[in-house]
Amino acid sequence: MNYPNGIKKETSTSKINKNVSYDNRGMNLENDINLSNEYYRDIDKAYIYKKPTPIKVTKVDYPSRDKAVIKEAFYTVPSTTDYNGIYKGYYIDFEAKETINKTSFSLNNIHPHQIKHLENIERHNGIAFLIVRFTKLNETYLLLIKDLLNFLNTNDRKSIPVSFFKEHGFLLKDNYNPRIDYLKIIDQLIGGN
Amino acid sequence: MNYPNGIKKETSTSKINKNVSYDNRGMNLENDINLSNEYYRDIDKAYIYKKPTPIKVTKVDYPSRDKAVIKEAFYTVPSTTDYNGIYKGYYIDFEAKETINKTSFSLNNIHPHQIKHLENIERHNGIAFLIVRFTKLNETYLLLIKDLLNFLNTNDRKSIPVSFFKEHGFLLKDNYNPRIDYLKIIDQLIGGN
Repeated sequence: MNYPNGIKKETSTSKINKNVSYDNRGMNLENDINLSNEYYRDIDKAYIYKKPTPIKVTKVDYPSRDKAVIKEAFYTVPSTTDYNGIYKGYYIDFEAKETINKTSFSLNNIHPHQIKHLENIERHNGIAFLIVRFTKLNETYLLLIKDLLNFLNTNDRKSIPVSFFKEHGFLLKDNYNPRIDYLKIIDQLIGGN
Repeated sequence: MNYPNGIKKETSTSKINKNVSYDNRGMNLENDINLSNEYYRDIDKAYIYKKPTPIKVTKVDYPSRDKAVIKEAFYTVPSTTDYNGIYKGYYIDFEAKETINKTSFSLNNIHPHQIKHLENIERHNGIAFLIVRFTKLNETYLLLIKDLLNFLNTNDRKSIPVSFFKEHGFLLKDNYNPRIDYLKIIDQLIGGN
């Protein structure tokens, strides 16, 4: 699935991922987050969902009254982020990205309007962050939008080095259930109550 | 756009609406809400968005490296509601529906799992509601999920009479900007601070 502007989703079917898609099945970040969110819902802890992929439909067939078949459509640029929901009354909003780069996370992976969106959420007292996985390092970090903005305001670099994630982000360890317990980090932030 | 189980969106292109789609252009509930949300964002008041319509893609062509054309896809049942976002730190979640019925709103218009979803949001201290427009009456109501649940718990009826909306809902008057100022009602609920 290729997005406009060359931005790829973490579930990208670009060449590299396509070749290993069977090996990776059920192992990628999106899947881990979806399963974690499912677990959170099952135990009535939080209601956080992935938004549907935005698609612009240009041709639809109606073979019967109640059945529509889309015959032509295009992926469009998401106006917000992939995940949002509620936890302990807080509005939660984040974007998740994987990178195969071992040393840094390219800012080309995020749309500027997604960063702006997360900034808006934070200003309105929501909890906004990125989850970034360095697949080759097998490390996943949660980075708060305020730390991302600090980086952007003090750097001209087009990518964030892993060291920045190590220093300012929160390492999310692999788990059985939930796969990645990112709400544990949120608990620390809101006082663990 | 026809959904499974015969449920229709407020932007339905079902027969009735199709015939008047040009007359109605820019007049329907979804459009009014989208414009209201845009206005709220413009004045930095709230960040509430419509989620993309969930679509299951079954065939994709890649005529070139960066261009994907969807050749077959289907509308799927939404797992949540159409709108969510943040206002004054509160998580906001709602579904919007139009009906041409003059006397009542059929519960067939809402998926049971959408009602369950709104109930979950409310229990976790979010603000959850329906916006229902009776197009022939030219009346639009905001109904809190708690009042909807009260109705469901005390009635066997398959539809909610307009009188229930009048008594327990909040009438949303047409405006210039925002078109329907539903956050004004939310202000009353959270204490208008």
